Amino acid sequence: MSADRFERIDRLPFEKVFKDPVHDYIHVRHRIILDLIDTKEFQRLRRIKQLGTAQFTFHGAEHSRFSHSLGVYEITRKIVDMFERNYPDEWDPSMRLVTLCAALLHDLGHGPFSHTFEKIIGSDHEKFTTDIILSEETEIHEVLSRVSPDFPNQVASVITKEHKNPQVVQLISSQIDADRMDYLQRDAFFTGATYGAFDLSRILRVIRPYKHGIAFQYQGMHAVEDYIVSRFQMYMQVYFHPASRGMEVTLDRLLYRAKSLYQEENLYPHFTLLDPFFKDKYTIEDYLRLDDSVLQTAINLWTTSDDAYLSELSTMFLNRRPFKSVAYEKGQDESIVEKLRDIVGNLKYDKELFTRINSSSDLPYDYKLKSKTPIHLMYADGTLIELSEASPIVKSLSGNLHGDHRLYVPKEFLEDNQKNKEVSMFQEDYDEFQKYIINDRIKNPNKN
Amino acid sequence: MSADRFERIDRLPFEKVFKDPVHDYIHVRHRIILDLIDTKEFQRLRRIKQLGTAQFTFHGAEHSRFSHSLGVYEITRKIVDMFERNYPDEWDPSMRLVTLCAALLHDLGHGPFSHTFEKIIGSDHEKFTTDIILSEETEIHEVLSRVSPDFPNQVASVITKEHKNPQVVQLISSQIDADRMDYLQRDAFFTGATYGAFDLSRILRVIRPYKHGIAFQYQGMHAVEDYIVSRFQMYMQVYFHPASRGMEVTLDRLLYRAKSLYQEENLYPHFTLLDPFFKDKYTIEDYLRLDDSVLQTAINLWTTSDDAYLSELSTMFLNRRPFKSVAYEKGQDESIVEKLRDIVGNLKYDKELFTRINSSSDLPYDYKLKSKTPIHLMYADGTLIELSEASPIVKSLSGNLHGDHRLYVPKEFLEDNQKNKEVSMFQEDYDEFQKYIINDRIKNPNKN
Amino acid sequence: MSADRFERIDRLPFEKVFKDPVHDYIHVRHRIILDLIDTKEFQRLRRIKQLGTAQFTFHGAEHSRFSHSLGVYEITRKIVDMFERNYPDEWDPSMRLVTLCAALLHDLGHGPFSHTFEKIIGSDHEKFTTDIILSEETEIHEVLSRVSPDFPNQVASVITKEHKNPQVVQLISSQIDADRMDYLQRDAFFTGATYGAFDLSRILRVIRPYKHGIAFQYQGMHAVEDYIVSRFQMYMQVYFHPASRGMEVTLDRLLYRAKSLYQEENLYPHFTLLDPFFKDKYTIEDYLRLDDSVLQTAINLWTTSDDAYLSELSTMFLNRRPFKSVAYEKGQDESIVEKLRDIVGNLKYDKELFTRINSSSDLPYDYKLKSKTPIHLMYADGTLIELSEASPIVKSLSGNLHGDHRLYVPKEFLEDNQKNKEVSMFQEDYDEFQKYIINDRIKNPNKN
Amino acid sequence: MSADRFERIDRLPFEKVFKDPVHDYIHVRHRIILDLIDTKEFQRLRRIKQLGTAQFTFHGAEHSRFSHSLGVYEITRKIVDMFERNYPDEWDPSMRLVTLCAALLHDLGHGPFSHTFEKIIGSDHEKFTTDIILSEETEIHEVLSRVSPDFPNQVASVITKEHKNPQVVQLISSQIDADRMDYLQRDAFFTGATYGAFDLSRILRVIRPYKHGIAFQYQGMHAVEDYIVSRFQMYMQVYFHPASRGMEVTLDRLLYRAKSLYQEENLYPHFTLLDPFFKDKYTIEDYLRLDDSVLQTAINLWTTSDDAYLSELSTMFLNRRPFKSVAYEKGQDESIVEKLRDIVGNLKYDKELFTRINSSSDLPYDYKLKSKTPIHLMYADGTLIELSEASPIVKSLSGNLHGDHRLYVPKEFLEDNQKNKEVSMFQEDYDEFQKYIINDRIKNPNKN
Repeated sequence: MSADRFERIDRLPFEKVFKDPVHDYIHVRHRIILDLIDTKEFQRLRRIKQLGTAQFTFHGAEHSRFSHSLGVYEITRKIVDMFERNYPDEWDPSMRLVTLCAALLHDLGHGPFSHTFEKIIGSDHEKFTTDIILSEETEIHEVLSRVSPDFPNQVASVITKEHKNPQVVQLISSQIDADRMDYLQRDAFFTGATYGAFDLSRILRVIRPYKHGIAFQYQGMHAVEDYIVSRFQMYMQVYFHPASRGMEVTLDRLLYRAKSLYQEENLYPHFTLLDPFFKDKYTIEDYLRLDDSVLQTAINLWTTSDDAYLSELSTMFLNRRPFKSVAYEKGQDESIVEKLRDIVGNLKYDKELFTRINSSSDLPYDYKLKSKTPIHLMYADGTLIELSEASPIVKSLSGNLHGDHRLYVPKEFLEDNQKNKEVSMFQEDYDEFQKYIINDRIKNPNKN
Repeated sequence: MSADRFERIDRLPFEKVFKDPVHDYIHVRHRIILDLIDTKEFQRLRRIKQLGTAQFTFHGAEHSRFSHSLGVYEITRKIVDMFERNYPDEWDPSMRLVTLCAALLHDLGHGPFSHTFEKIIGSDHEKFTTDIILSEETEIHEVLSRVSPDFPNQVASVITKEHKNPQVVQLISSQIDADRMDYLQRDAFFTGATYGAFDLSRILRVIRPYKHGIAFQYQGMHAVEDYIVSRFQMYMQVYFHPASRGMEVTLDRLLYRAKSLYQEENLYPHFTLLDPFFKDKYTIEDYLRLDDSVLQTAINLWTTSDDAYLSELSTMFLNRRPFKSVAYEKGQDESIVEKLRDIVGNLKYDKELFTRINSSSDLPYDYKLKSKTPIHLMYADGTLIELSEASPIVKSLSGNLHGDHRLYVPKEFLEDNQKNKEVSMFQEDYDEFQKYIINDRIKNPNKN
Repeated sequence: MSADRFERIDRLPFEKVFKDPVHDYIHVRHRIILDLIDTKEFQRLRRIKQLGTAQFTFHGAEHSRFSHSLGVYEITRKIVDMFERNYPDEWDPSMRLVTLCAALLHDLGHGPFSHTFEKIIGSDHEKFTTDIILSEETEIHEVLSRVSPDFPNQVASVITKEHKNPQVVQLISSQIDADRMDYLQRDAFFTGATYGAFDLSRILRVIRPYKHGIAFQYQGMHAVEDYIVSRFQMYMQVYFHPASRGMEVTLDRLLYRAKSLYQEENLYPHFTLLDPFFKDKYTIEDYLRLDDSVLQTAINLWTTSDDAYLSELSTMFLNRRPFKSVAYEKGQDESIVEKLRDIVGNLKYDKELFTRINSSSDLPYDYKLKSKTPIHLMYADGTLIELSEASPIVKSLSGNLHGDHRLYVPKEFLEDNQKNKEVSMFQEDYDEFQKYIINDRIKNPNKN
Repeated sequence: MSADRFERIDRLPFEKVFKDPVHDYIHVRHRIILDLIDTKEFQRLRRIKQLGTAQFTFHGAEHSRFSHSLGVYEITRKIVDMFERNYPDEWDPSMRLVTLCAALLHDLGHGPFSHTFEKIIGSDHEKFTTDIILSEETEIHEVLSRVSPDFPNQVASVITKEHKNPQVVQLISSQIDADRMDYLQRDAFFTGATYGAFDLSRILRVIRPYKHGIAFQYQGMHAVEDYIVSRFQMYMQVYFHPASRGMEVTLDRLLYRAKSLYQEENLYPHFTLLDPFFKDKYTIEDYLRLDDSVLQTAINLWTTSDDAYLSELSTMFLNRRPFKSVAYEKGQDESIVEKLRDIVGNLKYDKELFTRINSSSDLPYDYKLKSKTPIHLMYADGTLIELSEASPIVKSLSGNLHGDHRLYVPKEFLEDNQKNKEVSMFQEDYDEFQKYIINDRIKNPNKN
């Protein structure tokens, strides 16, 4: 059956809604969307938090990838509806279903605390997403196949950016796509960070399809500009927050320790659902049984491990007592950083497990990199202009990495009330360490 | 040390804040509050969702008891600040710390999906809360003891309503207390349910202490009235939602099955952290290791149990495929309900495990019950008037239970598209069952 | 041309929007709507404030009837769009234009501070609205006539409730219509009164046409109930606020004085734009030149009138120094009220000009009065149930007038710091007056 | 009496509040503030709209300078409270009253549609503000003098930036002061422009006094940066909107015409309250009788003037039919602009009255101009860093004027549907005019 024909017979007699605090309602008008939401693979996203360790800094940010995925779907639906109404010559209506499905499913392959966990298992969530869509054993695949045998492939090709229609691809992944638009709004809502707000409804009015993809009417320039700034602000103030990264470092070190123990010594209590990943031998089915709960429960169990390191790191994570950090200048203060790591390592701590460098960096916008489609504004006569040419603010952020480099160590070394406490065996080391900390940064005390 | 003196030396040089999407900021001005938040027992509340199974109906409502507890603290702090400023003759400032601590800790004893789980283990969260505060082994107890040896007792007595100062008790638990004010606002925010909103800042202006407790200035009557209506609306529309209760019933049945298996046959895979509870022999320490993750992970493991019932119920819960329900009139249609249960039980289903009656009921406001302190309004000259006397709306809700009675069954029996599906072995039973369902309620088809 | 055909050729190639703080955007898809907005009669509504004297109590509430009219249009448009999509059998699509136009124009005849001014000139805004629509001299009439010669009549008949289609009439005026839904939301937004919020988007989902008008799906009952309560709250807390009514009384007395002077003595400075109304001989054209500015400027000029009473009352209004008030029990304390009026009148004040009784009353909901269409809920099978039968809260408000009776007097008599001031010639009268004021109400001090 | 002592005895027993939709409540704790608000000069601000002609583009933006002034007071109060609590060594508490009064009164001298009207009368609102404060005939002066005979002078000196305490001056006027913080939030709220939102509560946490004025803690850098961007966005999208400027140009031309007629020919209907200004001979008392209503009523009367130009321009303004505009490149296309003006002038239009150039420009931030205090961030050790050094975004906006140059003409020349209308005598001129309009800008069609 053609996607077109399927779309018509698949329509629900009455639209169904999900109440959403960000978009008010998520509107579903096709049975296939409902059925995708009801699959066990999609329901699993309820058990994966959207922001990973940021919930430990912004306590309101406890929302899941499930909510976010519905939001991306809803924004995409609104855009597609508008395209069908206003741009019948530029937009192909037979793209409707594949676009909506890709929007809904684009995060399907995320696992618990993705960024950290993926490093441990050496894979990534985009690969998992397409695997889940294409595997014949998933409910997702079964539902998608109802449209046509090739439909799962089509949906996957949007996510891998190989789909032949550039409009569809750019709606789902580009520098201003439905994914980013939802997560900025949603993360701002749940953290309480007002600077993440931008004028979504204005952007949804000026976005438009054209031959080579997606552009924005020129008069909407400031709304797009403001979106770039909001995104930048969210990275600087929320996503890169030092405390969240302290939890990430703690999690990274404890998973590293657990895996080493498993592989080298087999010392720690086995945990059925994680075993395949420590063995580096897992299937999609194994992966789909993972969620935040599984990881947290394993860590819960490890707090009583016989291995003192694993037990301590697990306790730090479970009870939110992360490493603390201090920033330094890359390419200048590395030697001091090494000196500080040694101070820590010389005490009871294992240097590799208890000190860590963490760098954050984001490219708020770029128009030169091959891998990034530039954002284009369109004049009344169809001429295009690249965003940073029209906006000095965006130009100031373009092509520059933003973020910082931080050294993470046990918190004792960075608490300022050390001296008020009873005399400590670490006092000397603490003082030596603190010599290099000036205005909350690592600095060479002899320079400047 | 006197609480008063401790309070002064315990003040932070600079207040610390937590960003909160509901109250903007949570303001902390005492070290003891920070230290309580940092205990492992309080951090555990991050892993307990506030609304239990309601998250499966309102996908935004994924917030934890941790957020809520901070919110209750913040509302209480605002009230206490105002009392100190405006009512120096009626409010005893030495009550500050005990009130704030009780506000922060009042939910400490909640476990995973409290209402359902507590039924299985035969205890309740209020008991756990005081146990945690009073046990000498907890970090909470240690921090509280810093104020004075008796301070943990004082805090606990607020929660058990035995504290001698009725103002303190009523701030934390009464028909309009800081707990309810926070959860209504918070749950409304996260579900997106606008009807839960009421004028918190107005209520915080008209609340006042008097000799026998807490009252509200008469001119604030309509704000209090609106709070009662908002609370009623949240119960009717959110807390009693049939779909959430369907998940609750599913969870109840699966835990019941798991415990039976454990006790009678020892058939299912052991799960260290739950074992003490199935044995009915647990300590506070055992309890403090529980959280939503532990329960969800156990259910995750049970989806592959050898016991077909446990496996099916676990799968229903994990993948959000709950029982469906239909309302009936109590004291009138019980015999039909039994007939319908038999129809289900006569098929492959176990009647006790796969059909269930669930009743919800709430008393929005009462002024006659001994156990409930009435809400009082105070005139300029100090005279009191009970709320429902002043408000016909509140009178209409007073003393009446609201809620309904529903029969839960496997969803096949209540889906309306049964006939469109391929011919089913259940068709006849389905038709028989449906005969009694009129306008989405159980009705006797022969009566009108 | 048929309305249907006109509607098609009248569509704009691209919808136009107006940014609105309440509804985000007002969406216009027909040229006729744009042209109506651009008429001078509709633009005049920018110069008429929506809430009259309430702006003097709630300083944010400075919005105009122009904003409100756009809002009523937008809500109606959303409903009509939904009816066309979901109820093709119940809703006649040829009603679209007449419904939208009536929604937009329903308040066209409002003048400055309507309620007060209308009493002085002895007419009412509904009459003016239809006159403006039907008069061949207005731009409004000209634009409407483009659809068909009879179209102005059709639009007017919706506003007078004589249109033959009950659905159209009830959308624009009934106990839950687009007019009320907009003003509650809007007034709540601009005053800052949170209790005015209700779940508009939910109501817009459950509203539905049926043979005899408009009903609401049964499952939306609580949303409708909450709307009734919000409306009640806005009346009690905003619309009936004693201070706003104090400004209303002041305005009423000064207009009364000005008109008397004009008619009897011709003493005050003429003011061209008002003269026709003091002569009781005005045309529609005269009326359309009035706005808040004209009235305020007249009052501004009258502050320097030779007539001491007019000058004093005008100064009180212009500088916001209204009469103050005290409530009393009707049918019980009238004799005391008269006594109090005499105390005031015996001093330098004219009793008729400087004391006034003001009664407010609203019927939040009624189902018995012929003039009011009851609100109906509809079950799945089409059966109807009247709202107050389903909701005890609504029942408690039904059929009862709410509001109060207040005596307004010069503020000196009701300020409590009288005694702290220098000895006053009024001290004795003040004391006599105050004897009857107990707990901010008029009471007989010898009773009870 | 010392300001200090006065402050203590002036405190209200109970704080009074004004409900505000932006700040929730405005909190007043001193009688003097209440009394200032109650003066007739301050009440006049209710009749002066905050945004002048922007209300004609953003219909929600009908708020007054009264609301804004209360908002500036409230933000200042919050800052002063925080300074007193947290910076006892850096902030002088005897500055409290003078700071609050200056905040409240800083806009007192604004007249109707200030920017345009001031050009006509050749004065400015800052001069009027200090005149009103210092004049012995105003109620404002009388209330302020209660503190001490010199107090009015002190308040005025804050507004003229001559007060000796730089902290007080910078709180009220600098590149990030209470005035701007309120108007950005407020204008964003009432227009519905989300991009105007910034994190006010965060800024209120990081602002701090130091020896030479006001600085911001370094960790609040991004919040300050975001404020600069929000301000820029509001200028680009709201304050500089071409349609609002079209109304401004219309108003400017009509006032210019009216004054010329008055002075040269005495032709138009006298209007008592405006006469002194057309004579260029007015007192403070004359000025204080002006408000938006007076101007609008004059224009209302002038729509029937015998002078055809005055009547047409007045009608355009009253009925919101402003000039339309097109942008051009300054220093490049002036000759084309002149040519276009001639095309208009050669028709029935007077060139000086019916064509007009309007340039907008704003300096979002500057750190070099003597007249502007740079924004400083402060490190933990007290070192300062200028904002644009720390933020590349701010650097990109620093020292550059933003805005544009537009030619305003009768709308016939810029409407695109000219050709669809009946054959017009202007067709040829219209075509000639349109030749130079490319992509909505004036361009030389022969170049590029």
